[in-house]
Amino acid sequence: MSNKPSIPKGTRDFSPIEMARRNYIFDTIKKVYKKYGFQQIETPAMENLSTLFGSGGDESDKLIFKILNSGDYLSKADGKALEEKNSTGLTKSIAEKALHYDLTVPFARYVVQNQNEITFPFRRFQIQPVWRADRPQKGRYREFYQCDADIIGSDSLLNEVDLIKIIDDVFTELFQGKLNYTVSINNRKVLAGIAEAIGETDKLIDITVAIDKLDKIGVDKVLEELQFKGVDIKALTKLRPLFELKDDLNENLKFLENLLSTSEIGKKGIEELRTVFNYVNQLGLKTSNLKLDVTLARGLGYYTGTIIEVKVDNFPSITGGGRYDDLTGKFGLKDVSGVGISFGADRIYDVLLDNNLYPEFKGDSTQVLFINFGDKEQDYCLPLLFQLRDAGVNAEIYPEAAKMKKQMTFANNKNIKYVVMVGSDEMEAGKLTVKNMESGEQESLTIEELITLFK
Amino acid sequence: MSNKPSIPKGTRDFSPIEMARRNYIFDTIKKVYKKYGFQQIETPAMENLSTLFGSGGDESDKLIFKILNSGDYLSKADGKALEEKNSTGLTKSIAEKALHYDLTVPFARYVVQNQNEITFPFRRFQIQPVWRADRPQKGRYREFYQCDADIIGSDSLLNEVDLIKIIDDVFTELFQGKLNYTVSINNRKVLAGIAEAIGETDKLIDITVAIDKLDKIGVDKVLEELQFKGVDIKALTKLRPLFELKDDLNENLKFLENLLSTSEIGKKGIEELRTVFNYVNQLGLKTSNLKLDVTLARGLGYYTGTIIEVKVDNFPSITGGGRYDDLTGKFGLKDVSGVGISFGADRIYDVLLDNNLYPEFKGDSTQVLFINFGDKEQDYCLPLLFQLRDAGVNAEIYPEAAKMKKQMTFANNKNIKYVVMVGSDEMEAGKLTVKNMESGEQESLTIEELITLFK
Repeated sequence: MSNKPSIPKGTRDFSPIEMARRNYIFDTIKKVYKKYGFQQIETPAMENLSTLFGSGGDESDKLIFKILNSGDYLSKADGKALEEKNSTGLTKSIAEKALHYDLTVPFARYVVQNQNEITFPFRRFQIQPVWRADRPQKGRYREFYQCDADIIGSDSLLNEVDLIKIIDDVFTELFQGKLNYTVSINNRKVLAGIAEAIGETDKLIDITVAIDKLDKIGVDKVLEELQFKGVDIKALTKLRPLFELKDDLNENLKFLENLLSTSEIGKKGIEELRTVFNYVNQLGLKTSNLKLDVTLARGLGYYTGTIIEVKVDNFPSITGGGRYDDLTGKFGLKDVSGVGISFGADRIYDVLLDNNLYPEFKGDSTQVLFINFGDKEQDYCLPLLFQLRDAGVNAEIYPEAAKMKKQMTFANNKNIKYVVMVGSDEMEAGKLTVKNMESGEQESLTIEELITLFK
Repeated sequence: MSNKPSIPKGTRDFSPIEMARRNYIFDTIKKVYKKYGFQQIETPAMENLSTLFGSGGDESDKLIFKILNSGDYLSKADGKALEEKNSTGLTKSIAEKALHYDLTVPFARYVVQNQNEITFPFRRFQIQPVWRADRPQKGRYREFYQCDADIIGSDSLLNEVDLIKIIDDVFTELFQGKLNYTVSINNRKVLAGIAEAIGETDKLIDITVAIDKLDKIGVDKVLEELQFKGVDIKALTKLRPLFELKDDLNENLKFLENLLSTSEIGKKGIEELRTVFNYVNQLGLKTSNLKLDVTLARGLGYYTGTIIEVKVDNFPSITGGGRYDDLTGKFGLKDVSGVGISFGADRIYDVLLDNNLYPEFKGDSTQVLFINFGDKEQDYCLPLLFQLRDAGVNAEIYPEAAKMKKQMTFANNKNIKYVVMVGSDEMEAGKLTVKNMESGEQESLTIEELITLFK
């Protein structure tokens, strides 16, 4: 093969500067997670297909990358599916393993498998790539990182408060107060209450799926879609005011209390929202705009209480989360409530880049380059180079006596701040000529003086 | 599904303490890599199968985990292979992608793909999991981490010197001088010279494969195997002294010079070894035992010069590497020499654990727990909790007013050093009762005083 090599669609390489940026995001999130008592775990990229299948419905199953069994996999293949060329039917018999498509299902599996060793409530965070056989498009990858934090084994709403404060801490640090963003909150119980209040309990999913599109298609289209789904006209009339709420928390909570006065589950949802808002408002937020959004309906397949979403203007969701009451039930551990959030590292990456919000990463790369003038000078420089390194300075010597211009270009391209030149004069005097590549200034320094520049 | 969940054979979960240990290894290696001017990159877990296939021979191809194409993959399947139930033949037509089995091939692909943006010589490091469909056994996993550093685009032996010094720096820090380990060096050109000198140039691979087993099976078995492979008896007689070399560098180099006096490639190899040893011995090593091992023959498929291996007594290789002159040739970029090493993180993990060499990771987890005595106390504590966190202290409040014993057990299990108790007395006095869980002592402190304990 001598074609120009490429990588699979929807995947990407990370160059040194891209790594520095991404590590900056991870490190910020990690530091905040730890401040809140979360502990890091990691699960394998590969899970048994049976663990992943059926957790998010058929659509999710299609998004799972399956791993072909090793060896003579056809010998155990489902004969009927093979004969009928039924790809979906064949899969389970030739692929036992798959790549996880999120970190939530592996976490649920981990909790059940290690339930006897875990102290609950368990606060864990996990930063790993996930894989989805999605159609690649701008900002959507087939391999991307999630940064999840979950608290499992406690239904206290203080956990929700912590997660909102974490979001506030992370984006306060990453956005440096230079970017507006909104943390929207809703509650699945309120959505259930609404369906109940308008007499359409069995159409909860249809209603919320339609409501969730409000931003994109507008009120009229939403109502049209609901009518098409068979929601009663009278019910729709009751629904309309929901879409026209102003941004006034107390008014809206009162409106909901009124609308849901006959729904037990709805009233419970309102109470939960009130509690969360009360705590957060008392404690205060640094830079987040927190708002109630009764149209927020993400993750309906598993969320049972609070729903959280973070948005920056003109960008898809950069963080989301919610409470789920039965994530581990699938694996045989019932009645364990959890709540979590997931920072979308790749989207946050793009937001910071678009808005020029990355710090400089100078110290991350080489700080000092010794120019190589030939064998004698090189031998003189080597011990000095290691003295620098042992003092914690990132340093290199150009590995051969190439032309000066080539070596200086190397220093420039690698963003190296100091270049050290040692010729016969310097060797005699026991000094180094040190050029600051940013200012262009040259100084004559001893190795000890050079080291102190980095203290 | 309500069976107890499990993970695929040869994979594992990492619990919080295991993560802390592994991150400690990664952080140590990273810091040293950066000191030597290496920059981090990351490549996708998935590569095109065509990129990976054929890089390490048929045996390697079998070890590759292939990813089943999405959708109706059978519609494009190789009809003949399907009919014949030929698994190997079918694979390429139903799996375009695969998981990388090392970081070297993806790096070569990366270099060729980005050759116009890269400044050579390029020092890159990469810490990522790799996947191999190997038979799982103690210390061998199907998903494990590699920590690679390579310098590409320079044939200077100073690069070899840097890599050996990196090994010395990393294990000096990780082993704290408490563990003996040996860095063995050889040169592929010397092995080629030996085959030439005994008149068996075409049997180089057989000879080196047999020699490599010396440790395990002894001299006689090695010679027997070679005789079986058709190596001439007279040649074998010449070979025998090689296996009986004492650990005397100068004597051994002289012996090799004598043996290889008629082999140009052999002499070149000896010269390279001499240069590397000279530099390293002049610069000195902190804790490594560096030795020449003419029987070291790893990576013969691609190494063309220096070969490096690090071993701790009674343990398989924990680090290995070498020089390759044509890694990127496969992807259309010829004549680029590189040299690299790979730390085997999982084996180093086990060595440190077996020898009790991990530091304590206290600050990594929660440092302060507020006991929750009820709503009133909780509301009083919340702002104090956030004051601690904002001061950079990892802190939590137990999320509900559970029994005291339960909360104290939680603190114990999570290794939390300070437990804060606030009842009505404390609220009145504006003080906190702080219990040191290690010493058992209790103090009455203000929140500011508590914060200063962590400065």
